Amino acid sequence: MEQNKDIKPYVIGLDLGGTNSVFGIVDARGDIKATTAIKTVGFTSAEDFVTASVQALQPIIEEVGGIGTIKSMGIGAPNGHYYKGTIEYAPNLPWAHDIVVPLADMFSRELGIPVALTNDANAAAIGEMTYGVARGMKDFIMLTLGTGVGSGIVTGGKLLYGSNGFAGELGHVIVRRDNGRICGCGRKGCLETYCSATGVARTAREMLANDQRPSLLRNLDPEKITSLDVSIAAEKGDELALEIYQFTGHLLGEACANFAAFSAPEAFIFFGGMTKAGDLIMNPIKESYQQHAQGLFKNAKFLVSGLDGSNAAVLGASAVGWEI
Amino acid sequence: MEQNKDIKPYVIGLDLGGTNSVFGIVDARGDIKATTAIKTVGFTSAEDFVTASVQALQPIIEEVGGIGTIKSMGIGAPNGHYYKGTIEYAPNLPWAHDIVVPLADMFSRELGIPVALTNDANAAAIGEMTYGVARGMKDFIMLTLGTGVGSGIVTGGKLLYGSNGFAGELGHVIVRRDNGRICGCGRKGCLETYCSATGVARTAREMLANDQRPSLLRNLDPEKITSLDVSIAAEKGDELALEIYQFTGHLLGEACANFAAFSAPEAFIFFGGMTKAGDLIMNPIKESYQQHAQGLFKNAKFLVSGLDGSNAAVLGASAVGWEI
Repeated sequence: MEQNKDIKPYVIGLDLGGTNSVFGIVDARGDIKATTAIKTVGFTSAEDFVTASVQALQPIIEEVGGIGTIKSMGIGAPNGHYYKGTIEYAPNLPWAHDIVVPLADMFSRELGIPVALTNDANAAAIGEMTYGVARGMKDFIMLTLGTGVGSGIVTGGKLLYGSNGFAGELGHVIVRRDNGRICGCGRKGCLETYCSATGVARTAREMLANDQRPSLLRNLDPEKITSLDVSIAAEKGDELALEIYQFTGHLLGEACANFAAFSAPEAFIFFGGMTKAGDLIMNPIKESYQQHAQGLFKNAKFLVSGLDGSNAAVLGASAVGWEI
Repeated sequence: MEQNKDIKPYVIGLDLGGTNSVFGIVDARGDIKATTAIKTVGFTSAEDFVTASVQALQPIIEEVGGIGTIKSMGIGAPNGHYYKGTIEYAPNLPWAHDIVVPLADMFSRELGIPVALTNDANAAAIGEMTYGVARGMKDFIMLTLGTGVGSGIVTGGKLLYGSNGFAGELGHVIVRRDNGRICGCGRKGCLETYCSATGVARTAREMLANDQRPSLLRNLDPEKITSLDVSIAAEKGDELALEIYQFTGHLLGEACANFAAFSAPEAFIFFGGMTKAGDLIMNPIKESYQQHAQGLFKNAKFLVSGLDGSNAAVLGASAVGWEI
């Protein structure tokens, strides 16, 4: 009986997104044993959200052998604060947009297991270290290229949180001092205004307006162009679309060269929809990095996430649980 | 006797400079109990340098009660590599300029105590954490403004070394993409080409050439202007000299705003001759930081090193010894 108590082969991962909350019960090798999901929205309070989550979890917890088999729970959430286990002023969460929600404590009380929480980019980095291409690496930088640009920085085998828990905001490093694009953070020239999916679409609109060349992208309503459209056009060899990736990759490579001077990472790991463009984006990043990096750092690797896209976020969240 | 063996109240610090090597025997509070020095140059081999060092150390070791009172030795050296305990291809050291010298091991063999070695900026950061204004801080960035710009980054209470031991090369972050000044590292626009003492003198020469205003600096041979001359003129209210500090501080503040997004430090700590200019340089840095930093990071402190200038380097080196 005593021995049984110590064998806790699973963690729960919760990928808390703006629309859906996906739960997975995961073993140490990253195999998802059971999964469930609820809508994130549609609750008026965090308490209701937690109650609904626990209800949804019950059957899959039973499926793997009961709560006694579960070591802990990890949560990846927007505006998640690791030190405090809270979600703070998350603009997209109706039940957390104007308050501080102690979500880790709330789940811990309901489930009777330790719960840790961090933001989504940090969860992705921990996931990569636990199950993905960063296994065995102690120093790497994860860049998530999605609607924004997020980052998780691992140094000496640990996620870097800094003095206030908000370290690793590399999407908001200013990369263009003059005439920089206006960023959602209120400043100008942030990396994410250029290198997120939104930034790529913005580059497409600018290039189409400033250039007379024919392009497949001209068949689309400029206001509705997405980074996926650019990717499709680039794969067909569209010159303008290829240039958009050149421009984006160049900026990313240049930024990575400066990041290397900070933490001398073994690798930069890219995650998110934009990495589906493969070499179209990765080659310009690598070329620009070689051009801009100091000799000491030139042998950093450039990798794409090793986690299965649809499960990556929940795996990342679960990995936060193993860290407890 | 057994108990006596455990009481080792001192460490040896060696500040290995291009001209002089200064040794100090230091207690845990940062009091220097005894000190000695030899010339760094004038030796044909590292072995000769170590032999001369140990000879110079003998009397001061006896003075504090013999080698049994000494826990360890710390070395701060140019091109020092912490992981390997080596000095590698140090351009200014005749006995180490084209080879890898395992200096920590060599001293350890001769003295029979553990020896750790790191580069001078990292030693300064550890010194500040052990004896200076960073006592009790777990996350801060040390910037040394001297002939070059060096940096030591502390995260989670530990110095950041990165995958290859060379993390924290913030003097070589590129801060000017277009028409950047040529740097000793072979690239263009590095922070150190603007914000080192050499960079300030370069700014002075440029401003004097591009500007017709009268200035005390015009009384000097432009090729011989130093950052000290600029400081003296600025203290007398010289308009051009003040503008040089505005320009330099602005660049540093902007760079620190980007560094904050990386490691969310509690403080930036400045060290080196240029900090003697006091508010003339610190105020522009702080103003520019407030202007460029993301809201999350705006409350970082800006401090000047708390270590006595003439002893700071040897204290920093000794602090590396306490880390063993």
